[in-house]
Amino acid sequence: MPNQRLITFTTDFGLTEHYVGAMKGVIYSIHPSAQIVDITNAVQSFDILDGAIAISQAYNCFPKDTIHVVVVDPGVGGPRRPILAQVGQYTFVAPDNGVLSMVYEREERTTVRHITSDHYFRQPVSNTFHGRDVFAPVAAYVSKGVDPVKFGEEISDYVRFAAPRPKQTSPNAWKGVVLKTDKFGNLITNITPKDVPQIFNGSPHSFKISIGKAEVTKLHTSYGAGAQGEIFAILGSAGFLEISCNKGAASRLAGADKGSEISLVLDAQ
Amino acid sequence: MPNQRLITFTTDFGLTEHYVGAMKGVIYSIHPSAQIVDITNAVQSFDILDGAIAISQAYNCFPKDTIHVVVVDPGVGGPRRPILAQVGQYTFVAPDNGVLSMVYEREERTTVRHITSDHYFRQPVSNTFHGRDVFAPVAAYVSKGVDPVKFGEEISDYVRFAAPRPKQTSPNAWKGVVLKTDKFGNLITNITPKDVPQIFNGSPHSFKISIGKAEVTKLHTSYGAGAQGEIFAILGSAGFLEISCNKGAASRLAGADKGSEISLVLDAQ
Amino acid sequence: MPNQRLITFTTDFGLTEHYVGAMKGVIYSIHPSAQIVDITNAVQSFDILDGAIAISQAYNCFPKDTIHVVVVDPGVGGPRRPILAQVGQYTFVAPDNGVLSMVYEREERTTVRHITSDHYFRQPVSNTFHGRDVFAPVAAYVSKGVDPVKFGEEISDYVRFAAPRPKQTSPNAWKGVVLKTDKFGNLITNITPKDVPQIFNGSPHSFKISIGKAEVTKLHTSYGAGAQGEIFAILGSAGFLEISCNKGAASRLAGADKGSEISLVLDAQ
Repeated sequence: MPNQRLITFTTDFGLTEHYVGAMKGVIYSIHPSAQIVDITNAVQSFDILDGAIAISQAYNCFPKDTIHVVVVDPGVGGPRRPILAQVGQYTFVAPDNGVLSMVYEREERTTVRHITSDHYFRQPVSNTFHGRDVFAPVAAYVSKGVDPVKFGEEISDYVRFAAPRPKQTSPNAWKGVVLKTDKFGNLITNITPKDVPQIFNGSPHSFKISIGKAEVTKLHTSYGAGAQGEIFAILGSAGFLEISCNKGAASRLAGADKGSEISLVLDAQ
Repeated sequence: MPNQRLITFTTDFGLTEHYVGAMKGVIYSIHPSAQIVDITNAVQSFDILDGAIAISQAYNCFPKDTIHVVVVDPGVGGPRRPILAQVGQYTFVAPDNGVLSMVYEREERTTVRHITSDHYFRQPVSNTFHGRDVFAPVAAYVSKGVDPVKFGEEISDYVRFAAPRPKQTSPNAWKGVVLKTDKFGNLITNITPKDVPQIFNGSPHSFKISIGKAEVTKLHTSYGAGAQGEIFAILGSAGFLEISCNKGAASRLAGADKGSEISLVLDAQ
Repeated sequence: MPNQRLITFTTDFGLTEHYVGAMKGVIYSIHPSAQIVDITNAVQSFDILDGAIAISQAYNCFPKDTIHVVVVDPGVGGPRRPILAQVGQYTFVAPDNGVLSMVYEREERTTVRHITSDHYFRQPVSNTFHGRDVFAPVAAYVSKGVDPVKFGEEISDYVRFAAPRPKQTSPNAWKGVVLKTDKFGNLITNITPKDVPQIFNGSPHSFKISIGKAEVTKLHTSYGAGAQGEIFAILGSAGFLEISCNKGAASRLAGADKGSEISLVLDAQ
């Protein structure tokens, strides 16, 4: 099946309604041999940053030419534009609200088009469900080989926001934030090895992290290395510092969650 | 793959057990090139109306000839019949408990058969999981091209219920009900533009809706048009009046949920 | 597509993050015509027994030669081994922590290999996400036809635990345990017809079951046979005694859950 192309979904439509199923039906109606894969449909409702994180973590695990449909769209039916973005080796279909910001950050080549060719839309277009009426059919036609230029003009003023970055508050101190809590209770922060290489390199500095009501002074290299009930730091699979617990939920133990502040201080050596 | 046919799932089996996976395994064992798509497996447990709403919202987004498996089946193992229904351009496999009522309502041609040919079942047939033992294998054989007449006799006394309709209580007043709360907290009511055209047409009447502890006097045409914290009415993608909030959960703000009464009064003009 | 092989997922990665999507992307990148089916990705976090139950209930509904990826892996990055197990007619890719124990129990032929050929891994291999970096790519290469012997040496000391079995405490009394509560609130116990045939056979003994705050004296053969609010016993589709309620959650009514003790006494006759 050389022409069959993968389409992925990253949305906040949830799994308890027909929303995602309706979008899939629209795609298969247009392109029966499309192959649709869910990245996640449980992005937090209306939370563009949460969607931006999800797609940025998964898009480049897929084969090149995969079409990623990313719909976290609180502005549906309003003035925000639908866009078709070719970023690196991938194509994205999304509302122009910044949900692709963390993808733009990681790739060099970006061409973004404002989708205006409404003959590719499902008619009549509702004001409340562009996932079904705009984004799904556009993705289906792209997967059938319709040239991206046919969907609309290139734009350069597309929306992008800077993901929150940690701040160095003194030569030995940083403040960061929890980007999200995952299903296991791992607190995924916005601190990367680039920000504070001292704690990740071969002979790591001692440090103290304060987060919620917890103090963390250990860095482990695997979850299982933690003692029972111990809260520790670890370099997570997403490339961020995580605060974790072996077989437990660090979020609950620390009383911290998405948005919580994390402060990190290197000890004098 | 001209003969490959789509099979969808709308069930209350949830995602935390093996139930849906087992059904898919049974289908792929019988028809390896079937293509299975979940509409939702998170219908509220035992809730036939919730299942009826879900399938009625999504079935006709799919290509014609799609086979929709709809299993919300509190009467499994009892006297209720398994049925194969050809409705409009689609085929449905379901228990005969009314879960297809809102599909029957929308289509003109309906042929319903009582599935009795148990050589198409997975043996031994349990009394507790006909999703795996009856509905999945029947759907698989239909997808392989077995003629519907082979599964059993046509019946005319299949179960259908009338979905709850709004009631006009005076020339300017209606009472309706919340059919469901979606993942975003939108309260989807049973009121349609046909019932009260005055509030949806070009120069809408002013109105007052009471729902839970909220009073609603605004109709917006997109979610984003609402002010922060404002509860408003909107025509939702399902064709029903919804009570919504921009980036917030109207259900929580109004203290209302599935089953809540909604009263709508048109103001004198 | 004679060479296309099915790959299933049974994991505790949940549906709210990108984890499962990333694994699917890795597989499709290696083997574009693989077909991936979720059994469940909502195994309870870190709970090897819960994963063992899920895969043991579903694996043999799938066509032979299906590759089952089972990742409940609290020891990721530590000394536990990744394994490739050929069990009966199926292939399993999993951490060697006992998650396949209930599959080993049901099949006669078992060959287990320690996966050491790291050129099949996604590089660099993280210490925290072997689902993406080890298990997914290995499953993809197996699905492409790579001979299992190429992945590593056969081992015989693979981990297996005995699932908890009921205990006969007197000639007429047994103690068991709730293995899990399903989405409907059914309490699935570890008691099978082999353990206490007297209550399941044609002319069943009268009995009394104590579980949580409930006393159960009725066995029904279908959920719908129960009166409203009645808690009863039933032989579930998994082959275990379940404590259930017709259109209600027995778990809530009985105040019992996973791990709760169940005691069963046959009445003198």
